[in-house]
Amino acid sequence: MDTERLRKLLEDVSRGDLGIDAALERLRVLPYEDVSGFALLDNHRALRRGFPEVILAEGKTPDQVSQIFQRLAAHNDRVLATRVSPEMYQAIREQLPEAVYHPVGRMLIVDRSKEEKKPGVVVATGGTSDIPVAEEAAMTAELMGNCVDRIYDVGISGLHRLLSKQEQIQKARVIVAVAGMEGALASVIAGLVAVPVIAVPTSTGYGASFHGLAALLAMLNSCANGVAVVNIDNGFGAGYLAGTINLLK
Amino acid sequence: MDTERLRKLLEDVSRGDLGIDAALERLRVLPYEDVSGFALLDNHRALRRGFPEVILAEGKTPDQVSQIFQRLAAHNDRVLATRVSPEMYQAIREQLPEAVYHPVGRMLIVDRSKEEKKPGVVVATGGTSDIPVAEEAAMTAELMGNCVDRIYDVGISGLHRLLSKQEQIQKARVIVAVAGMEGALASVIAGLVAVPVIAVPTSTGYGASFHGLAALLAMLNSCANGVAVVNIDNGFGAGYLAGTINLLK
Amino acid sequence: MDTERLRKLLEDVSRGDLGIDAALERLRVLPYEDVSGFALLDNHRALRRGFPEVILAEGKTPDQVSQIFQRLAAHNDRVLATRVSPEMYQAIREQLPEAVYHPVGRMLIVDRSKEEKKPGVVVATGGTSDIPVAEEAAMTAELMGNCVDRIYDVGISGLHRLLSKQEQIQKARVIVAVAGMEGALASVIAGLVAVPVIAVPTSTGYGASFHGLAALLAMLNSCANGVAVVNIDNGFGAGYLAGTINLLK
Amino acid sequence: MDTERLRKLLEDVSRGDLGIDAALERLRVLPYEDVSGFALLDNHRALRRGFPEVILAEGKTPDQVSQIFQRLAAHNDRVLATRVSPEMYQAIREQLPEAVYHPVGRMLIVDRSKEEKKPGVVVATGGTSDIPVAEEAAMTAELMGNCVDRIYDVGISGLHRLLSKQEQIQKARVIVAVAGMEGALASVIAGLVAVPVIAVPTSTGYGASFHGLAALLAMLNSCANGVAVVNIDNGFGAGYLAGTINLLK
Amino acid sequence: MDTERLRKLLEDVSRGDLGIDAALERLRVLPYEDVSGFALLDNHRALRRGFPEVILAEGKTPDQVSQIFQRLAAHNDRVLATRVSPEMYQAIREQLPEAVYHPVGRMLIVDRSKEEKKPGVVVATGGTSDIPVAEEAAMTAELMGNCVDRIYDVGISGLHRLLSKQEQIQKARVIVAVAGMEGALASVIAGLVAVPVIAVPTSTGYGASFHGLAALLAMLNSCANGVAVVNIDNGFGAGYLAGTINLLK
Amino acid sequence: MDTERLRKLLEDVSRGDLGIDAALERLRVLPYEDVSGFALLDNHRALRRGFPEVILAEGKTPDQVSQIFQRLAAHNDRVLATRVSPEMYQAIREQLPEAVYHPVGRMLIVDRSKEEKKPGVVVATGGTSDIPVAEEAAMTAELMGNCVDRIYDVGISGLHRLLSKQEQIQKARVIVAVAGMEGALASVIAGLVAVPVIAVPTSTGYGASFHGLAALLAMLNSCANGVAVVNIDNGFGAGYLAGTINLLK
Amino acid sequence: MDTERLRKLLEDVSRGDLGIDAALERLRVLPYEDVSGFALLDNHRALRRGFPEVILAEGKTPDQVSQIFQRLAAHNDRVLATRVSPEMYQAIREQLPEAVYHPVGRMLIVDRSKEEKKPGVVVATGGTSDIPVAEEAAMTAELMGNCVDRIYDVGISGLHRLLSKQEQIQKARVIVAVAGMEGALASVIAGLVAVPVIAVPTSTGYGASFHGLAALLAMLNSCANGVAVVNIDNGFGAGYLAGTINLLK
Amino acid sequence: MDTERLRKLLEDVSRGDLGIDAALERLRVLPYEDVSGFALLDNHRALRRGFPEVILAEGKTPDQVSQIFQRLAAHNDRVLATRVSPEMYQAIREQLPEAVYHPVGRMLIVDRSKEEKKPGVVVATGGTSDIPVAEEAAMTAELMGNCVDRIYDVGISGLHRLLSKQEQIQKARVIVAVAGMEGALASVIAGLVAVPVIAVPTSTGYGASFHGLAALLAMLNSCANGVAVVNIDNGFGAGYLAGTINLLK
Repeated sequence: MDTERLRKLLEDVSRGDLGIDAALERLRVLPYEDVSGFALLDNHRALRRGFPEVILAEGKTPDQVSQIFQRLAAHNDRVLATRVSPEMYQAIREQLPEAVYHPVGRMLIVDRSKEEKKPGVVVATGGTSDIPVAEEAAMTAELMGNCVDRIYDVGISGLHRLLSKQEQIQKARVIVAVAGMEGALASVIAGLVAVPVIAVPTSTGYGASFHGLAALLAMLNSCANGVAVVNIDNGFGAGYLAGTINLLK
Repeated sequence: MDTERLRKLLEDVSRGDLGIDAALERLRVLPYEDVSGFALLDNHRALRRGFPEVILAEGKTPDQVSQIFQRLAAHNDRVLATRVSPEMYQAIREQLPEAVYHPVGRMLIVDRSKEEKKPGVVVATGGTSDIPVAEEAAMTAELMGNCVDRIYDVGISGLHRLLSKQEQIQKARVIVAVAGMEGALASVIAGLVAVPVIAVPTSTGYGASFHGLAALLAMLNSCANGVAVVNIDNGFGAGYLAGTINLLK
Repeated sequence: MDTERLRKLLEDVSRGDLGIDAALERLRVLPYEDVSGFALLDNHRALRRGFPEVILAEGKTPDQVSQIFQRLAAHNDRVLATRVSPEMYQAIREQLPEAVYHPVGRMLIVDRSKEEKKPGVVVATGGTSDIPVAEEAAMTAELMGNCVDRIYDVGISGLHRLLSKQEQIQKARVIVAVAGMEGALASVIAGLVAVPVIAVPTSTGYGASFHGLAALLAMLNSCANGVAVVNIDNGFGAGYLAGTINLLK
Repeated sequence: MDTERLRKLLEDVSRGDLGIDAALERLRVLPYEDVSGFALLDNHRALRRGFPEVILAEGKTPDQVSQIFQRLAAHNDRVLATRVSPEMYQAIREQLPEAVYHPVGRMLIVDRSKEEKKPGVVVATGGTSDIPVAEEAAMTAELMGNCVDRIYDVGISGLHRLLSKQEQIQKARVIVAVAGMEGALASVIAGLVAVPVIAVPTSTGYGASFHGLAALLAMLNSCANGVAVVNIDNGFGAGYLAGTINLLK
Repeated sequence: MDTERLRKLLEDVSRGDLGIDAALERLRVLPYEDVSGFALLDNHRALRRGFPEVILAEGKTPDQVSQIFQRLAAHNDRVLATRVSPEMYQAIREQLPEAVYHPVGRMLIVDRSKEEKKPGVVVATGGTSDIPVAEEAAMTAELMGNCVDRIYDVGISGLHRLLSKQEQIQKARVIVAVAGMEGALASVIAGLVAVPVIAVPTSTGYGASFHGLAALLAMLNSCANGVAVVNIDNGFGAGYLAGTINLLK
Repeated sequence: MDTERLRKLLEDVSRGDLGIDAALERLRVLPYEDVSGFALLDNHRALRRGFPEVILAEGKTPDQVSQIFQRLAAHNDRVLATRVSPEMYQAIREQLPEAVYHPVGRMLIVDRSKEEKKPGVVVATGGTSDIPVAEEAAMTAELMGNCVDRIYDVGISGLHRLLSKQEQIQKARVIVAVAGMEGALASVIAGLVAVPVIAVPTSTGYGASFHGLAALLAMLNSCANGVAVVNIDNGFGAGYLAGTINLLK
Repeated sequence: MDTERLRKLLEDVSRGDLGIDAALERLRVLPYEDVSGFALLDNHRALRRGFPEVILAEGKTPDQVSQIFQRLAAHNDRVLATRVSPEMYQAIREQLPEAVYHPVGRMLIVDRSKEEKKPGVVVATGGTSDIPVAEEAAMTAELMGNCVDRIYDVGISGLHRLLSKQEQIQKARVIVAVAGMEGALASVIAGLVAVPVIAVPTSTGYGASFHGLAALLAMLNSCANGVAVVNIDNGFGAGYLAGTINLLK
Repeated sequence: MDTERLRKLLEDVSRGDLGIDAALERLRVLPYEDVSGFALLDNHRALRRGFPEVILAEGKTPDQVSQIFQRLAAHNDRVLATRVSPEMYQAIREQLPEAVYHPVGRMLIVDRSKEEKKPGVVVATGGTSDIPVAEEAAMTAELMGNCVDRIYDVGISGLHRLLSKQEQIQKARVIVAVAGMEGALASVIAGLVAVPVIAVPTSTGYGASFHGLAALLAMLNSCANGVAVVNIDNGFGAGYLAGTINLLK
């Protein structure tokens, strides 16, 4: 559309219907505005590459979520809303009959894409309580077109559980390490592999875990190379980044 | 210049030297880039209104400060560097013969402007130790074209000192309140006036002042209306904002 | 009234009914007390200028809110209570038939004023979840006599959305920037304009947002000039300050 | 009783019924144990002076509170339980028919003492929301035998309200200053008087008040002399200390 | 002086030289201003009672300290500067020949008063490293006219050391408890006595003492009644408050 | 099993059925994997020594807890789940008829072991509110085969209560000290004994206890030797460690 | 070597020189130990892929750094030590004649590799003060075999500077965004591209930047997708991760 | 001595030289005081068991350290001062000719004991920078009579280094795990053994390690059983506790 407006302006100049100065004046007002047009095209490219805008349902009303979801579903093959509580899903499920709700990862998804998934992403957790965040990561990466290998409950206090999964781990091109409490899983894994590790601290634990702060700090201070960290409980962010890395050409 | 490039492109289109599609293509690459051209024009307007870019000397090498200062001094009537330590000034004073160093506020200034100052800014401090930050605020506002009334050492533990300055305070159009320790000066002043109060917490104090955190939190929680806060010890920021408000037309 | 008492005392002195020493003694006891009389006059002036005392409903009982509201409504054209939960409104609505409840901004308002609104205030938000705080700011400024332009959901991760609003933004005399998460909206806006920006961190987000702390710190550390910050979620404070700045003569 | 045991031992030694070494051995085991006897006597003295042990109901089960209360009521003229929620009171009221519940201060009290109250304690609050904590302080001091003057809602953003109470304030021998938000009330009051000020930060406020941390830090950093601070919302502690100071002979 | 001005005004009114309205007008401008006059009288009373304004040397230049000290020494029998480093003392000692420097407590004192000291203050420390802060407290109380009993190095890890001082402790009318690390001294002492305990956390210790934060929090959470806390390392504040309490009539 | 696989490999090599290089290749893939086999044997040894894996119920669904519990109960004499809320117990009690629920310590236990308990563990608390955490510690140590002596409500504000238990305390081989608020119990006890003290901070308290942070920091800064600390409210961890120490041979 | 030992063992078994049980026994002791052998092989593979172990010089003595450096230089084509102060370099330069010191990034490097660099990494900074950290990132990635495009001083307060670099930014396969203060650069860049962004908060700034905490939190809360964060000032970590991502096949 | 006094008193009673009431009176004054006597005996027992009082040199003057050291050396076979800087040692070495200074662990030691050391203590570190703290722990345990096995630089990012030390680790009766950064070493070790692990966080690292806070929190949140934590950098405390556990009979 913006392209249309620009073309129209250029045609007007070309035909002599618009003087240079007037065109210049209109372009002077236009830049940021039109930028948005181009940015949107960029945005469209991003969509084709993987993902449209994602809805963070938490903090929004059911109505807002439902409306944004429908608007996105009208123009995209894939739509994703995260942190959708069961109550919110109940409130909007009738308006979104095509959407599938995943209660563990608290995600609402429409996926009409057909493309083949690319293997290479591993999602690992330290404990059982970290699984909801891990599922958010795994399903995000899958929706983007990645094939995800889940390795759950391999926390470092029982190193053998982790080491017994060496083969799977060594096949990964990128690993998401999800852990609460002391959050050491990311460092241990990163010490075993030579690929990027995206660490997700979780708010599991109690007391001096301070809702995930302990794990967050531990992961930021990882003595292993190749680790970067996302926000506490941000499974989506880690899955998105891992998916992006795995899909890099 | 950007305007020149745009005009050239439009003229080419107008003359038929450049096809619509080719022009479109070049504009598609251009937007953000050219945006910068327009933004720079905006920037120029900002400079004329008051202030060019300001140099935060802390964290830079003397060389970097000296070079940026000279570059700015070549195109502006006013140049300001803040947080210039005496040692840094010694290292660069010979390269900047025109610049005046103000040791209390740790500022390095060139001021070739002639315009009349507009009264309306008051800068107040709780104690003697807050004066360096207050001077940074006051001199910034003055350099922008404001006339500043200083009311120092009127901390709230001796309310009478503050109340005895009522007349001066009531004449202000905007007030900068600089205080460390419990930082209550801003609230007390804001309770006495009906104009904006910019609060500057300082890192004076010890122990549970936590380098200004106590004053910062106190100021953010002011029970008085009309108070906003800048970073700890950020005299420049407060002076700049107060100066901007006072100069608003 | 206090003036009456003073006049009476002076008349008594003038008529010789009260000796100098006795008058002096009474004045000696009086000052702070009478000060309050004068201060109240001052207060009255403040009321005429824009705003009477505002009720922070949170932390008070419905009864307390209702009584203070009625008392203020008896003597003022405008009354404002903030942070009024729907439950509290239900409990007191019958006692305050004239008051209008705004559920998004959680405000209870009586507005009998007729004066024309002055344009110049812009309120912008990063996301949809920031709207309640933004509405609190916007409606506060409106009630004070300002005309407010709302620019919502222009967060920095999609810069084009913000840049497409350039025209509106450039018209502002003062801008309220409301954002949670990384809170960068204020800096980006302040980099585009030459007017004061009042930043409001919001508690939207999760994990390491620490209920708004991340946004608060980011805003305090803004690398752009002309930004000051209010308390987390303090839409009222920002709206009040922006309104005060815009109404400055 | 312990005295009895000691006397018995000494008599046995005196009568030759107990050898020196055996006595020594029994004393060697005894000291800490018997210390408790003497300490208890001390404790009894403390009770007579003002207060028996006080029950912090929060964190205990209704049953625990009820039993401890009854045990104390059997041997003391005055019994006090603090932080008693209405629900807890409902659960135990039948077992404690003599106890009076004060819902604002959330206290449960038995007071059979007849002694005259000694004037000298002032309890002041910044706002209406601080009253529950202030009542806890005031009623504690009263129960100890002090006469308390309440000065509520004299927060520093409207200095005139505080200053109009100068006469009452100047009569105090000790002042409890209760305030949330920026907590400056204590400093302002301490600047006006020459008596001890016990500051109580409250958890009223929101955002960067961090549940009373802002007020706590502000009070600890008071620039006025003669201020000491108790825990956030600890009305009891402040009232107890103020009462102790006022009753000092 | 202010009294003089008021008397003059009243005399003018009395003589008919000044009309009621004109007098009223002048009084209207006067209140806050004249308040300061009265407040100063109040201040004078405070001085006679114990202490003039005290100089916190830290954060001031040697020049500022020297000038303020001389000004105070001209009108007061007692002058006190705290946190005076040996370097600062060297820089100003010649200008202040009468002042005595106490290097342990880092205080600079002039004391020309002759009045008898009143016994009743005990200052106790947990360890040897807390002595500088304790000396600041003790010497402040002494300068105010109190007689101070020092009980040093009685930290709770060797309870017997503390218990062996029971007799001294039981004689106190008010106790200052100075301790770093876990800061439990205040609670233990308060459990032994029935008089006010002023707790001073110190920044001794390392690691998770976080420069005194651990001791500060521990003291604020004391499970013993009758404890209030001052800022970390604030020996002066504790000594001043203890002195004030002991001198209460 | 892993041993079987290894034996099979070696036999194949021995019989010449597997070449050296092929065997080497399989071992190269195997190491970490087989390590897990050995580690599991280790694990089995750990189980026999005292404790199988323990279930932290909090953060898991009732279903997950029930399934893990049943799986462990099938192979172990002792099974322990901690932080089991009454609601969770209601949801799974029918599936676990043998399990005993202890509501104070919120533990679910199966204990079919017959071995005699070894005396030596003391669990002490500062107050009544600390008992749930203390019970978690005590019952954990008991389940491991220790005999536990409970000394509750001996907080340091009434030192005599603690000192009267000297005899019991002196008999301990290891002591768990459970306390909230200022958490000084651990230091005082450690000052009285020459055995290890495991300190458990609890989240009892309010305000500046910051959910147990104050007690945690105090315990970490203990001036007494021989104290180590576990997470806030981590009764299980302390009981487990104390039990392990007491059972050391 | 470990492989050698294993081969020897297998040959012994194959030749019948070692019985199955004896071999099994030796393998049982071996696993973890030998694991290390395999892990080292893994490590070797990692070395070939990019990087040997890196030396964090800070916290080590010059001697330790020099020795480790020499040992690594004996077996590797590339050696890297980070956070090498000029003083430390002076102390060890004679022992490491081949090593090149880069004072801006504070790195000591030996690079004997000849392989061609792969383009795709962009390193951007918000300000001039962030350059040392950025150089650490850039040089690390270069040493790994990446070609790095530096875009410095494009902080968001002057959006046009960043936008004018659009072309360079859009060519990146992975971007390192280095910024202090409010740290918004990462979000703004991530909003413009569809590739991974590694955010590095820096400790530049003052006051409420809390040594990089503000930037760290802001980056963790980025509202843009595809951002992960490393430790404050950890240029090496970011460069290593970006290099790893860019070299992924 | 105290025993002597008691015996004398009993003999006086026995001989009739002291009446019952008089004896009772003297005992009443005596308890706490004499308690100290017994406690001191206790203390003596503690000394024989392992360790006299230890001197924390940091925060004391060289003179204080020297005097306390000499006093202890006069009555004890072993004397230990920790955190002795090289400067302090220089200042006092002549007064303590027998004392040996260990610069790595910053300890000053006199050891005249001859008893055989008991094996069982392992001290492990994550990195080279943790060695000073580890040495403080190891030498403390050795001085107490333990034989210490040091396993340094086995951080978890290279798991093979740790696993290759399995044999040594499995022989330990108690392990001290010293680590900075993410502090995961303690958890990994505790997952491999069935003996107590004392974790020591160190302040090595930078940025979000916050001087050891990250490691401290990680260790407190260890998901492995049997871990307890001491203060940051508190090698002495960990060594003392480990030594005590190993020497338990």
